[in-house]
Amino acid sequence: MQTFDAVTVPTFILDEAIAQDNIWQMTQKASQLGVIFRPHFKTHQSAEIGGWFRQQGVSKITVSSLRMAAYFAQYGWNDITVAFPVNLREHALINQMASVIQLGILVEDAAVVQQLETVINQPLNIWLKIDAGYQRTGLPWQEPEAILHCAEAVRKSPFFTLAGLITHAGNSYHTPMEIIPVLFAESIQRLKFVQQTLQNAGHENVLISVGDTPGCSLSPSFSGADEIRPGNFIYFDAQQLMLGSCSFEQIAAVVACPIVALHTDRHEVVLYGGAVHLSKDTVKVEGNITYGLVCFPEGSGWSKPIPGAYVKSLSQEHGIVSIPESAFSRCKIGELLCIIPAHSCLAADLLGRVMTTSGEIITMFPGSNR
Amino acid sequence: MQTFDAVTVPTFILDEAIAQDNIWQMTQKASQLGVIFRPHFKTHQSAEIGGWFRQQGVSKITVSSLRMAAYFAQYGWNDITVAFPVNLREHALINQMASVIQLGILVEDAAVVQQLETVINQPLNIWLKIDAGYQRTGLPWQEPEAILHCAEAVRKSPFFTLAGLITHAGNSYHTPMEIIPVLFAESIQRLKFVQQTLQNAGHENVLISVGDTPGCSLSPSFSGADEIRPGNFIYFDAQQLMLGSCSFEQIAAVVACPIVALHTDRHEVVLYGGAVHLSKDTVKVEGNITYGLVCFPEGSGWSKPIPGAYVKSLSQEHGIVSIPESAFSRCKIGELLCIIPAHSCLAADLLGRVMTTSGEIITMFPGSNR
Repeated sequence: MQTFDAVTVPTFILDEAIAQDNIWQMTQKASQLGVIFRPHFKTHQSAEIGGWFRQQGVSKITVSSLRMAAYFAQYGWNDITVAFPVNLREHALINQMASVIQLGILVEDAAVVQQLETVINQPLNIWLKIDAGYQRTGLPWQEPEAILHCAEAVRKSPFFTLAGLITHAGNSYHTPMEIIPVLFAESIQRLKFVQQTLQNAGHENVLISVGDTPGCSLSPSFSGADEIRPGNFIYFDAQQLMLGSCSFEQIAAVVACPIVALHTDRHEVVLYGGAVHLSKDTVKVEGNITYGLVCFPEGSGWSKPIPGAYVKSLSQEHGIVSIPESAFSRCKIGELLCIIPAHSCLAADLLGRVMTTSGEIITMFPGSNR
Repeated sequence: MQTFDAVTVPTFILDEAIAQDNIWQMTQKASQLGVIFRPHFKTHQSAEIGGWFRQQGVSKITVSSLRMAAYFAQYGWNDITVAFPVNLREHALINQMASVIQLGILVEDAAVVQQLETVINQPLNIWLKIDAGYQRTGLPWQEPEAILHCAEAVRKSPFFTLAGLITHAGNSYHTPMEIIPVLFAESIQRLKFVQQTLQNAGHENVLISVGDTPGCSLSPSFSGADEIRPGNFIYFDAQQLMLGSCSFEQIAAVVACPIVALHTDRHEVVLYGGAVHLSKDTVKVEGNITYGLVCFPEGSGWSKPIPGAYVKSLSQEHGIVSIPESAFSRCKIGELLCIIPAHSCLAADLLGRVMTTSGEIITMFPGSNR
């Protein structure tokens, strides 16, 4: 119980052994299936945890913002893709970063490529962001002419190299487990179709990069892809568990929250742990919408989720947990509950630092604006 | 357009004149209605903005965590209530803070008071947290015996002073506008009932403290209350506007977000502005669940919300905005949209700093864990 003894406030607790194993599993899978592994670091946002990947041979990474790229560049990462449609307003930082590392950015509009050309004076890897069906953003895969138009705009600039086609099949988050590999393979096939169009127009060496933890975890094959970019798999979370992307044993992180009040009449526990710690992302479990799965601390780790317990509501700092009677009687003010967050990326981002189950504090990217 | 020219990433933009006026209005109202004004600083979390309150004569404040109290104490605030059920695991910081400022904490359990007594050795103001109907937490107002039991436990300690009864009528957030003052008055009456019980048992000078921006904004009278603790009113937001707590002209803050992609076929704008900037709190507007109200930058401020536009979904960094055709045609990649957040407290907490419409950068509490 040493770890938990040191917890006084809501704290992101990480089981390093599980996280290391999650990294190892995905690294091995990528290696065995012959794809480049470019993990997404937006989940952990930590130079030290990045080092765990490096030890397993990872040298290329993905991040979600240019400022996060700048943070990791300080720690020796020199091949970084910012997997977000390029933000023209940050052209100064793009130039600065591209002068020191191999920087990849995403574009999805020929006009944006032309605008970029007027402000960029450093070599830049350009990925075309393709919408393979998710409909969040990207050039629709069914429109190869528009994609080719964009590729041609890239070719015109002496600073730009067309690196490849990139997609994020985020629709996997709303798909039954057994369909996820089908969707994943379909995304790759759609990118292959686009790749062929580009190749016919003389664009060679256009890589195919795919992402998303559910697809990368559940697909037995990455056939057709050149690169994968999952991120969440290092921690997993309640959403991934419910999707079937991971087992309970693969969940590497919880948010430990002090119990500050008990309401015996309604079997509710009040936690110090609210929207500013867990985020207001949710997951549906046994018919309840919850902000996470509720566990007891157990040794230096945590128990399986308490059946029937759920995080009913979050205010700024309060979390209200509904717990069935038998488990409720084990809750004591001043002790902790461990919440497997609905979405670990957002909880980690909010908490801004990590405590391992062996009590070590791991710092993170101090946050975009801080 | 000078302010917005400096915006490269999602940025919390504040119109200082509106915020100053919001402070002035509430300060005046509290003064005219004869109550202590102890504003909640969890909304702005900024020493500099705290100074604006001080200039208007405010000397007592409310915060939502002990660490936030420690931050404000560094800036000369010496009468602070932490409006959150006391967290026993932070007793060391409670002692430290209580040795330098007048610290108020909330309790709602006689057993907790007894546990506190064994670890606290500094004078502490104790507020009894009363549930006046919201059912989030607190001692139920209908149980005066339990409340008296708690008050008696407080009286036993030489370090503790029973400061008063405190409630947060958070149910006002789910109440039609015209009912909010009724609910507010009812909360006060319920606390008066409890106060009488305590007075009959010899507990004198027990104050009544009430909170919540909707109640404090809409109630014409605070009769029966000794103190008010609203917080959100400094900025207001989309939730408050929808409740009727404020007018559009009183909204002091937006999140300016760069446009990074356009999808003409579905009239969707992709923003650099996601769950890590806006939070996943929502508000219902014209039948749509949205993460905020969508406005254009206008001069150094922002337009009225675009009719029919809404923030449809948020990923970690992406925001997807649905905009009717006529306004969609005004959107350009590289320009900005201004989002009035659903909940300004959470957006401010996430963004961690403020830019005023005159271009000044205001720093904030660096965050609980950072």
